[in-house]
Amino acid sequence: MTVRLSRYTMFIRSCSSAVMSSSPVIVTKTASNPFNLVHADLRHLESTISLLLQSTVPKLSQISNYYINNSGKRIRPTILLLLSKATSKSHLVSPSQRKLGEITEMIHAASLLHDDVIDNSSTRRNIPSTPTAFGNKMSILAGDYLLAQACILLASLNNTDVVKIMSTVIANLVEGEILQLSSRTTDFSIYLEKTYLKTASLISLASKAAMIVDSRSEEVIHAAEEFGKNLGIAFQLIDDMLDFSNFDLGKPSNADLKLGLATAPALFAYEEFPELGPLISRGFGEPGDVELATNLVLTSQGISKTKELARKYIDRAKIAISSFEGSPAKDGLDEICELVLNREK
Amino acid sequence: MTVRLSRYTMFIRSCSSAVMSSSPVIVTKTASNPFNLVHADLRHLESTISLLLQSTVPKLSQISNYYINNSGKRIRPTILLLLSKATSKSHLVSPSQRKLGEITEMIHAASLLHDDVIDNSSTRRNIPSTPTAFGNKMSILAGDYLLAQACILLASLNNTDVVKIMSTVIANLVEGEILQLSSRTTDFSIYLEKTYLKTASLISLASKAAMIVDSRSEEVIHAAEEFGKNLGIAFQLIDDMLDFSNFDLGKPSNADLKLGLATAPALFAYEEFPELGPLISRGFGEPGDVELATNLVLTSQGISKTKELARKYIDRAKIAISSFEGSPAKDGLDEICELVLNREK
Repeated sequence: MTVRLSRYTMFIRSCSSAVMSSSPVIVTKTASNPFNLVHADLRHLESTISLLLQSTVPKLSQISNYYINNSGKRIRPTILLLLSKATSKSHLVSPSQRKLGEITEMIHAASLLHDDVIDNSSTRRNIPSTPTAFGNKMSILAGDYLLAQACILLASLNNTDVVKIMSTVIANLVEGEILQLSSRTTDFSIYLEKTYLKTASLISLASKAAMIVDSRSEEVIHAAEEFGKNLGIAFQLIDDMLDFSNFDLGKPSNADLKLGLATAPALFAYEEFPELGPLISRGFGEPGDVELATNLVLTSQGISKTKELARKYIDRAKIAISSFEGSPAKDGLDEICELVLNREK
Repeated sequence: MTVRLSRYTMFIRSCSSAVMSSSPVIVTKTASNPFNLVHADLRHLESTISLLLQSTVPKLSQISNYYINNSGKRIRPTILLLLSKATSKSHLVSPSQRKLGEITEMIHAASLLHDDVIDNSSTRRNIPSTPTAFGNKMSILAGDYLLAQACILLASLNNTDVVKIMSTVIANLVEGEILQLSSRTTDFSIYLEKTYLKTASLISLASKAAMIVDSRSEEVIHAAEEFGKNLGIAFQLIDDMLDFSNFDLGKPSNADLKLGLATAPALFAYEEFPELGPLISRGFGEPGDVELATNLVLTSQGISKTKELARKYIDRAKIAISSFEGSPAKDGLDEICELVLNREK
């Protein structure tokens, strides 16, 4: 674990310093909506998960399905499905790859169930969170149940390397959450490490696993893992940027600052305004801290630098799969990169 | 799942009705302390788990190890180790069987971490609970981390049947907890179903898995599973009995009644005193309910019938392994049965 993190830290340090350079932006032709390419597969995934989560305790089925039924675009399984199609000669997704999509969505939902208890979140995606709707106890238990069902499904893949990879994801999600809870630092590499563990690890390692279960080459396995890692980090960078740049009633939501978290825009702003240092260290905990930090971030180049850094990661993601043969699925992956980078909410 | 439960319900119904019959009690010769037989193995297990739970986040290692370091007798791995020795021609424990002992202890510790958040427990084994010592958030995360590490270790066994069996245990623990939280019933079969899911499933299925990983015969695999199941149910029956029969300052602790739970002694008492029915249905929630129920249980044959039922399960456990060849490990298993039945705290 120590070795993995320190190698990873070296990687992200090189990446964050590269933000100042001016490498060319890769331009991709616009494909049809990539989600349409896997529409039928996603509907199949939803119905399969619903069956898998049936329990003799009906409430357990209901709560463990709650976030899955109220999901967003299903970006994680979409990426796995497109990677599977793009790297298959027949452009087909294998049953094991489908299962990995289901497992990924189940692990993601489990982490949301536990995160919402940990963060005392009252809403998610504009609906009451599970702790609000069903209580903390049931949210914890439903999360455990999802993890157990994901493990049962994992076992059915008959590939112990893949079980190990996906179990590592669960450990990473926990380590990322703790790093977020415990670190009030101006160190950008710790922020990126947290971002890898909490956001990118799942999509990166699931992408790797989806290639392993269908016996892709070492090069393709590595490419998929890199694609997922870089796209995942870019996704979180944009998420953190939108927390400042999305205005609601004239004010940014800056929910992260209110939770005491210094994300990329604040860390970039700190480079221009060192007076942000003490505020970051105390988790924006004193009266006026959130407002002052918001103003400094908006005055600084924090938001544009965050977007610029996200673009670097998106470029890396595209380069990772640049050797894949041309296909609608490959175009779909490139298109997802642009959608992630340019989304506005 | 439905099939398994309904078959199991049939089994437990036959067993609970058999309590009134007078089948002979099996007498076992007293062996040396069974825990001494596996003393060195248990120390090895402890140091291995401590290494496995090392994390780059030191607090995570500390909390995930907390209940493992403050464990009781380690009855679960002791049973696995003794079953492994008793069924091996060389009387040796294989590396995979050792790993299963570690996995079992880790899953058990994970369930304690989450249970103590769910039940708002302030102490465990006379020390502050993890929610008290480290907070709910860290307890939830450390439980998830333990589950993830247990899954990684499971994967290293290279046996997907065993991954599936042990993942089913995690699902069972959740279903058992929910059954306990949600059912205020006088139905004895539901109580026994909850007891299987929440207590016996782990030791039963881990025993089964320990035989599978070292390629034992179908008969031995079945025997180990039955042994664990019956011993586990007896263990919980005695636990529930001691909640009434262990007096502290002249009063039983009756912690279960205070939590709203009707266990075996109360359910047997209900057969004699139907007026307990409404109290059970309302979870002993009105003033005076706990005191009235305690008096009725102590007046009834509830405690003696609970012990009698535990004896039935202990007899079944012993019968399950009666065909094992004589050995110190086999004697140790019989001795554990008596220790479970006759423990006083």
